Amino acid sequence: MKYKGAVMNDSQMGERGLRHLLSLENMPKEIVIDILDRAGEFLSAASGGAKKVPVLRGKTIFNLFFENSTRTRTTFEIAAKRLSADVVNLNVSTSSQSKGESLLDMVNNLVAMQADMFVVRHSQSGAAHLIAKHVPSGVHVINAGDGRHSHPTQGLLDAFSIRQYKNSFDGLRVAIVGDVLHSRVARSQIHVLKTLGVDDIRVCGPRTLAPETVSDLGVTVFHEIEKAVLGVDVIMMLRLQHERMSGTLLPSPQDFFRGYGLTEERLLLADNDVIVMHPGPINRGVEIASSVADGPRSIILPQVTYGIAVRMSVMAVLLGNSL
Amino acid sequence: MKYKGAVMNDSQMGERGLRHLLSLENMPKEIVIDILDRAGEFLSAASGGAKKVPVLRGKTIFNLFFENSTRTRTTFEIAAKRLSADVVNLNVSTSSQSKGESLLDMVNNLVAMQADMFVVRHSQSGAAHLIAKHVPSGVHVINAGDGRHSHPTQGLLDAFSIRQYKNSFDGLRVAIVGDVLHSRVARSQIHVLKTLGVDDIRVCGPRTLAPETVSDLGVTVFHEIEKAVLGVDVIMMLRLQHERMSGTLLPSPQDFFRGYGLTEERLLLADNDVIVMHPGPINRGVEIASSVADGPRSIILPQVTYGIAVRMSVMAVLLGNSL
Amino acid sequence: MKYKGAVMNDSQMGERGLRHLLSLENMPKEIVIDILDRAGEFLSAASGGAKKVPVLRGKTIFNLFFENSTRTRTTFEIAAKRLSADVVNLNVSTSSQSKGESLLDMVNNLVAMQADMFVVRHSQSGAAHLIAKHVPSGVHVINAGDGRHSHPTQGLLDAFSIRQYKNSFDGLRVAIVGDVLHSRVARSQIHVLKTLGVDDIRVCGPRTLAPETVSDLGVTVFHEIEKAVLGVDVIMMLRLQHERMSGTLLPSPQDFFRGYGLTEERLLLADNDVIVMHPGPINRGVEIASSVADGPRSIILPQVTYGIAVRMSVMAVLLGNSL
Repeated sequence: MKYKGAVMNDSQMGERGLRHLLSLENMPKEIVIDILDRAGEFLSAASGGAKKVPVLRGKTIFNLFFENSTRTRTTFEIAAKRLSADVVNLNVSTSSQSKGESLLDMVNNLVAMQADMFVVRHSQSGAAHLIAKHVPSGVHVINAGDGRHSHPTQGLLDAFSIRQYKNSFDGLRVAIVGDVLHSRVARSQIHVLKTLGVDDIRVCGPRTLAPETVSDLGVTVFHEIEKAVLGVDVIMMLRLQHERMSGTLLPSPQDFFRGYGLTEERLLLADNDVIVMHPGPINRGVEIASSVADGPRSIILPQVTYGIAVRMSVMAVLLGNSL
Repeated sequence: MKYKGAVMNDSQMGERGLRHLLSLENMPKEIVIDILDRAGEFLSAASGGAKKVPVLRGKTIFNLFFENSTRTRTTFEIAAKRLSADVVNLNVSTSSQSKGESLLDMVNNLVAMQADMFVVRHSQSGAAHLIAKHVPSGVHVINAGDGRHSHPTQGLLDAFSIRQYKNSFDGLRVAIVGDVLHSRVARSQIHVLKTLGVDDIRVCGPRTLAPETVSDLGVTVFHEIEKAVLGVDVIMMLRLQHERMSGTLLPSPQDFFRGYGLTEERLLLADNDVIVMHPGPINRGVEIASSVADGPRSIILPQVTYGIAVRMSVMAVLLGNSL
Repeated sequence: MKYKGAVMNDSQMGERGLRHLLSLENMPKEIVIDILDRAGEFLSAASGGAKKVPVLRGKTIFNLFFENSTRTRTTFEIAAKRLSADVVNLNVSTSSQSKGESLLDMVNNLVAMQADMFVVRHSQSGAAHLIAKHVPSGVHVINAGDGRHSHPTQGLLDAFSIRQYKNSFDGLRVAIVGDVLHSRVARSQIHVLKTLGVDDIRVCGPRTLAPETVSDLGVTVFHEIEKAVLGVDVIMMLRLQHERMSGTLLPSPQDFFRGYGLTEERLLLADNDVIVMHPGPINRGVEIASSVADGPRSIILPQVTYGIAVRMSVMAVLLGNSL
């Protein structure tokens, strides 16, 4: 199942603004800022004791997960419930798909049940785009990760996290380390950071995982982590996705850590105020030393908190644009 | 596990009206009309923006699915949530049953948790009846499909769908095509249509799937679809249930389509204003040509929308009768 | 995975009272009484039609089940929903754990999602304690069963059940029959009954399942059920946990019933007003004769009802102590 026909850009804009969140590529800066600002409001409300708000009361949101990811699904489920929406979880591998119902027939049926939003996770790039192209106006799609292509809420929450700790995106030096080639997270991070004005983005990994062609995305490619993190303000580690790689590309966990793992020594090469990020779940001793993950420069757990606020914000912004 | 002892009729009536929805056989016409009218009200409210209503706030509804059916469970889950009830999904094959707990012991326990309603799906005919017979007053059972026997909410939503498109049930000519023998959907459709005054009901399929004995239900049996659909106002296609048939009865999908699939040519034989229905999910190119399923005479997707309203109505009517 | 480092006592008390519910061992009597009293209020409210109350609106409760138990999970899910909390079910064996995420990293992530409470079920003794020790203030842990160690909400609901039927715990004679050795239920029952002032607690089973060492808990050990139940006011049968025992310890179901099953004859040996209890689900004809389970002395189903009220009470008490 390849969704080659899907249009990858601009299909997320509607007449009243952002209609779907499919990709961060070419997303207008003012929309990114709007989402981050609104997330900030939800975060403040939660700190003030108003974790749950009636913004989406009566709305029906489907978590449509064609690829198992309890963690990601949970963050969307919580975000939707805190907005007072009704949430229905559909893990599709074990249901309709196995009876031969096609993707779009299934989506048509859920739309007919008066769905307001689909949160879509799929192993195939373009699946969320295909659904977004297909649904009628008033129905919204959030891409919760599609193949190697995009994971836009992760990119947005990373941007939000950086904004919480850094005064400005101008002049920021950011290193992204790990399996850049297969990472939808990295692609989304790069797109949003460039939109926000970050010029100095360095990606780093072994040649098999960070080939020179990645520079097409407007980043500088490094193969030595010591050079990549030199003086940077932000280090974003990627998760090694064992399941996405054929065996030969991937070094052993020990080899990877030796070559690219973020250790305390390597951290010293970065700026004094560097922040360390990871989309989670972390592989301790593979991408990152435990002392760094749990250390004072790590903002890995705050990222999770911000992730809920950002997902609430995206849901509220999209549904706000359907009125 | 056969529930042979279960009483199949009238066990659904209580002192204050309909107490359980188990079967449409012999259901009084005024109750059917009441359910359809109330469904119409929920549908109107949803169109007016009030998709969610507080009718069942504080009630606890268990989706008790002994047979996996994500699609059907989802429609009941949404209906219950839109009525503001609390819903607990129990997929029983993987839980208590495997530990040897008996059906009625499990039901007793859930009743003791102060359940208000059970939505029961089971592969054995009579399972919902057995539960209904067993639960105390104040607890209600909806049969969401039991073996080959009955699928009453499907029959009701089909009746509702027809009423949305046709002025009257009087004089209506209806063809039901496919595997009539094994279909709980067909049985429920026939019962409700006869109750509503439809005299001309034609069932059609190969002799193995639509034997002459089906005429006992008060319908005319056809083996040629061209004759069955001639001049009809409504064509109801059934889903081929591969899993319910032994191999020899079932023609190949290609053979079935050649003999009984609803094509554009065959559709021309029906009345100009014919509506085409299917309980879903459709098998394109098996029961129905894609061009017909997606064409102007098809009301397959509206049926899904009406299905939510009808299920909300049934829940509200039953629980209204417990006060 | 053994959580040997976990502290087993007093780690559940906070500055404002009970912070976690991990074990009933050494729990102050006034806290037990407070939980039972509050459960009584929820039970009364439900009888009065107010089954659902807004006590925990906006709170997020995670059912963190590392061991499959649909029944127990359902009782906590219902309790949380009746308190108007948002509930997220996580069956962990099939998710993060399989990707190698450690227990505490997973908990850290859920805490970062602003969890208010974890209901933890785990096959390893001490798992809930480990989590409780780890979470920040404002986050609460309920042990929903950990290995052979403890199942405190079961103990509390059993105490509540006894109080509903008996005037006083003073002078009460209680027999606990079955696999005492492997039963977290028995341990919790013994702890809470002793706290409430029950002096005459008799445990009974074959030597393999009720060895003399059990008397360390302050109970009298019997190997003949006829002697154990003689004149008692309460008989608590335990569930045979096939999955927890190596083959040689366990007699066949028939042998067990012959030796220790609660029959009508044996029941006659107890006090006239004896009540019969079982944590469920019952194995008919193994631990208990059907006529006894369904008979006038059995309070097995009321226990289930009380179990919801007690779990609501525990949740409300714990979260009340975080303000």
